[in-house]
Amino acid sequence: MAGASTSMRLRLPIACIALEVILIILFGVAVEYDHDVSGEAGHKTNTTHHDYENEFYYRYPSFQDVHVMIFIGFGFLMTFLQRYGFSSVGFNFLIAAFSLQLATLVQGFLHTIMTGGKIHVGVESMINADFCTGSVLISFGAVLGKTSPVQMLTMAVFEVILFSVNEFILLSLLNAKDAGGSMTIHTFGAYFGLMVTRVLYRPNLDKSNKKNSSVYHSDIFAMIGTLYLWMFWPSFNSAITLHGDIQHRTALNTYYSLAACTLSTYAFSALLNHEGKLDMVHIQNAALAGGVALGTAAEMMITPFGSMIVGFLAGAISVLGYRFITPFLESKLKIQDTCGVHNLHGMPGILELFTVSLFPKITSDFPASAQAGMQAISLVVTLGIALIGGIIVGFILKLPIYGAPSDSQCFEDGVYWE
Amino acid sequence: MAGASTSMRLRLPIACIALEVILIILFGVAVEYDHDVSGEAGHKTNTTHHDYENEFYYRYPSFQDVHVMIFIGFGFLMTFLQRYGFSSVGFNFLIAAFSLQLATLVQGFLHTIMTGGKIHVGVESMINADFCTGSVLISFGAVLGKTSPVQMLTMAVFEVILFSVNEFILLSLLNAKDAGGSMTIHTFGAYFGLMVTRVLYRPNLDKSNKKNSSVYHSDIFAMIGTLYLWMFWPSFNSAITLHGDIQHRTALNTYYSLAACTLSTYAFSALLNHEGKLDMVHIQNAALAGGVALGTAAEMMITPFGSMIVGFLAGAISVLGYRFITPFLESKLKIQDTCGVHNLHGMPGILELFTVSLFPKITSDFPASAQAGMQAISLVVTLGIALIGGIIVGFILKLPIYGAPSDSQCFEDGVYWE
Amino acid sequence: MAGASTSMRLRLPIACIALEVILIILFGVAVEYDHDVSGEAGHKTNTTHHDYENEFYYRYPSFQDVHVMIFIGFGFLMTFLQRYGFSSVGFNFLIAAFSLQLATLVQGFLHTIMTGGKIHVGVESMINADFCTGSVLISFGAVLGKTSPVQMLTMAVFEVILFSVNEFILLSLLNAKDAGGSMTIHTFGAYFGLMVTRVLYRPNLDKSNKKNSSVYHSDIFAMIGTLYLWMFWPSFNSAITLHGDIQHRTALNTYYSLAACTLSTYAFSALLNHEGKLDMVHIQNAALAGGVALGTAAEMMITPFGSMIVGFLAGAISVLGYRFITPFLESKLKIQDTCGVHNLHGMPGILELFTVSLFPKITSDFPASAQAGMQAISLVVTLGIALIGGIIVGFILKLPIYGAPSDSQCFEDGVYWE
Repeated sequence: MAGASTSMRLRLPIACIALEVILIILFGVAVEYDHDVSGEAGHKTNTTHHDYENEFYYRYPSFQDVHVMIFIGFGFLMTFLQRYGFSSVGFNFLIAAFSLQLATLVQGFLHTIMTGGKIHVGVESMINADFCTGSVLISFGAVLGKTSPVQMLTMAVFEVILFSVNEFILLSLLNAKDAGGSMTIHTFGAYFGLMVTRVLYRPNLDKSNKKNSSVYHSDIFAMIGTLYLWMFWPSFNSAITLHGDIQHRTALNTYYSLAACTLSTYAFSALLNHEGKLDMVHIQNAALAGGVALGTAAEMMITPFGSMIVGFLAGAISVLGYRFITPFLESKLKIQDTCGVHNLHGMPGILELFTVSLFPKITSDFPASAQAGMQAISLVVTLGIALIGGIIVGFILKLPIYGAPSDSQCFEDGVYWE
Repeated sequence: MAGASTSMRLRLPIACIALEVILIILFGVAVEYDHDVSGEAGHKTNTTHHDYENEFYYRYPSFQDVHVMIFIGFGFLMTFLQRYGFSSVGFNFLIAAFSLQLATLVQGFLHTIMTGGKIHVGVESMINADFCTGSVLISFGAVLGKTSPVQMLTMAVFEVILFSVNEFILLSLLNAKDAGGSMTIHTFGAYFGLMVTRVLYRPNLDKSNKKNSSVYHSDIFAMIGTLYLWMFWPSFNSAITLHGDIQHRTALNTYYSLAACTLSTYAFSALLNHEGKLDMVHIQNAALAGGVALGTAAEMMITPFGSMIVGFLAGAISVLGYRFITPFLESKLKIQDTCGVHNLHGMPGILELFTVSLFPKITSDFPASAQAGMQAISLVVTLGIALIGGIIVGFILKLPIYGAPSDSQCFEDGVYWE
Repeated sequence: MAGASTSMRLRLPIACIALEVILIILFGVAVEYDHDVSGEAGHKTNTTHHDYENEFYYRYPSFQDVHVMIFIGFGFLMTFLQRYGFSSVGFNFLIAAFSLQLATLVQGFLHTIMTGGKIHVGVESMINADFCTGSVLISFGAVLGKTSPVQMLTMAVFEVILFSVNEFILLSLLNAKDAGGSMTIHTFGAYFGLMVTRVLYRPNLDKSNKKNSSVYHSDIFAMIGTLYLWMFWPSFNSAITLHGDIQHRTALNTYYSLAACTLSTYAFSALLNHEGKLDMVHIQNAALAGGVALGTAAEMMITPFGSMIVGFLAGAISVLGYRFITPFLESKLKIQDTCGVHNLHGMPGILELFTVSLFPKITSDFPASAQAGMQAISLVVTLGIALIGGIIVGFILKLPIYGAPSDSQCFEDGVYWE
């Protein structure tokens, strides 16, 4: 019975094919090449100076770094579970491949609301679509091991739309700054996912508790994910900034923030263990908090000094979160956060607000207080959409049609993989 | 006896040293730096505008992506075998390091046939050499586990030459379009390899059947290969196109094709399993077919819409191939295709022809029908050289001098690794 | 007792927090953005031509490749040990994150000695800091498994300073050439590390001998490190050269050197085994020697022919070193070199001197003999500082305050990881 109810034999093909066919039709109707993607192809024989200034050459290396973060970074970070490696990396792959297509449409549609016309695609839309996908994968981390792939595709549909609406409100209506997505990507993805996992609360999850842990090699696989996220985070934060010194500075600040964050992560991980032993979960996750926390401020004149302070605090907060807040969320608030996304993406995203306030002169086109106020409003909007959206989507995902695993089948590849 | 006959003690050193010495001599005689590699080195103290327009900056990031595909992508994709991981990644490494040197010479020689002069090397020749190497590694995938490294080096010698001749006929004589190598790399490599494995048919391979399968961690290692191939395929297809919008468009189209391909792969993998479970072999391979199938057309004005249709079909065809055609090839045609290269590289390469025909207006410098006709002739030439060449090389590899493993030693690292 | 003495409960937090706080203060006092990192951020709305010429676009892709080598390359190369994977990749991560911050300060300070003013940071300082970090990680390879993380942080403090002093003497005072760091990075790091491990000699290390070896999957993890180092070495050697043809040539020469090195590595590995079997240790390490040996000469007009000869010799020397010299060093000189850094980084670095002498006309701004003489003096200086510095630092690391593991706890993650 349980086996029958989780079968993906029809559910997954129907979901994938229906979604992909709809995407293809919408792309056919609404999408066209951006001006530096289209062109008089075939007529050229020599490369002109103009060709060298194609946006491709100034964004594509950053895009590829972001792409690696999405598929290898997020995918392998979640392989830490001993019997859920196929699903971690495999469903991450599926959800990401779907989300980036839908995000292109929804983000593009909102962009054209004002101006009309078709949706334009190029390397910038590819980066933005990957960003939105990252937010979906953060939410996936919160419910990892407890959901079916059809549930995750369904969540992705709603989350991509809500993400894009929130992003549109923040960047286009409120003129907030968030190049690296502290709020739009991390805070949104984390709190949305936390609400979903709250609604999907499983009181008897201890049945599969033994499998909700790592083994030796699964932790080393997870370090592949961690390191790619860590190394390429400077590219993530700077991928979509303005060109020139701003992009340069964004990458540089993120690099220093992450380095400082790593040292505080090791320090607090050892300090909080009664034998002084390091916890792989902290290293795999908290060392990345410096990139999250600087998502907004990295493009500002925050200096390496400021970046390192933010990174150091982010690492400390994140380790403390794993040690104290995650158990509290689970036991008191019934939020079962498999990957601890609250510690890596939730709190460091909020830390960003203090960053902007702490460095009042870091931006020059607005009065500092006005910008700080706008960032605060943006954060409230983000939290509102994430929390309410997450609850509603959580209830949608509770419908008994997705083949969700039983409690004893959680964290187990065998349900979905031959 | 069996142990003695497979010893690499003398065979491998002789092969490696002889081949490398010949390569070094030929490089000394025939190769010189391309004009933007050579220069008045040492005289400069400031970077001039001209230096920023060096081809290096517009090709090298793509080259590095391709390089990762060749060594990590192909190498780790083949680590799925439970007891053949060292050989998969290690012989992939050896064959690739050899092939890229030989390819530089043979491709360069054919380029200079018309014009005379020395062979010029630079970042473009590096990409082309890696492409040719990719074709050899595809053939390696067909015979994986059943051949000695000396056999593989020997195969590489012949395949690099035949590949380069075929490529020269297609691109220089027939004016075919094939920037991403649907025909020259994938179709050629696949059918060449299939013929080699046909001639090397082992009727008693079931002796090592147990080892011709994966274990849990070997499948996760293989996903590293899959994901790097998948992420960087846009760079592969666009690495050698003309600069500007064409290169931009090629990467973009490939990105969408792969995303759509991934969804159809998951759909058909679940649909074809009676319990609806996903098959790692499909995910690892078929999800890449969208990159192969768009190798030729990606630079054209095929639109994201067209790219997604091609990708979707490629994924479906590839999964169906693994499910139905591979067993047929093995039982009826005696073609033992270890990695299923027919499904990933063979059929999607042929699908390309239909792509060019289905989108008659996608290229503007030729009448569409003429271009489609030329592509068809090119495919016939490619298949002819691959099939006949593969059979001949197969018989050369049957000579009892290479230390080929016995049937019970197949798929076993212990034969070659301490 | 033993457990208590190795506890990191206070040691590691104190070390990490104290060092990071000092770094942050010094960054606050002494560091400012380089001119193409700083700017009138926020005022711009359009990208100007000038923005496209920001150094960022011509260095950042190379930087990211180097970054991957430091964190994934070195980190995973050392995961070959069966029970030390967490520490290999985890302490590599910690030490590298620390060293790159300190290196920025020390290298920057020495740069400003002549001119005065603040330390400027940008993508070039990031590459140089990663280079210095690489040298520290080479030394880490020599003592791998036998030291505590606090010992390693302490070593890093001293080594970063000595490295920077040596680099300053060579490049700024002696006008030596060493773009890829044959001497400054590899020779220095190797001989420094060998002296440290000599002073830390453990006569009873055979107590943990069983753990000082690999298992099947740990060797495959290590190949991830090897391949990333191999693929990106052309970026490493060329990351900081002058722009234009020099950078192009440096990458190209390194590519050929590594390819030739790989073939000689396989040849000699099989030849030296009495059954002709390949040794994973050789493949993982010696195949990289071609990159080390060409660190200095790669930017010169050495031709692919010359590069391949150097690479071929480097591979052979390195394998011979693993087979004959490492056991000699251990048994006669009491140098326990866990990763065999002498074979990969020590000897190939010295080979560089012969390279410069063998190709007398490869540089045009100095008389060849003068340049060769300067390189010889530089090598002597490097060896002097490395050997004497290593001995002194070795004795500092012998103090019983770092929580060093007992002999039976060596090569064991359990001491430091939960």
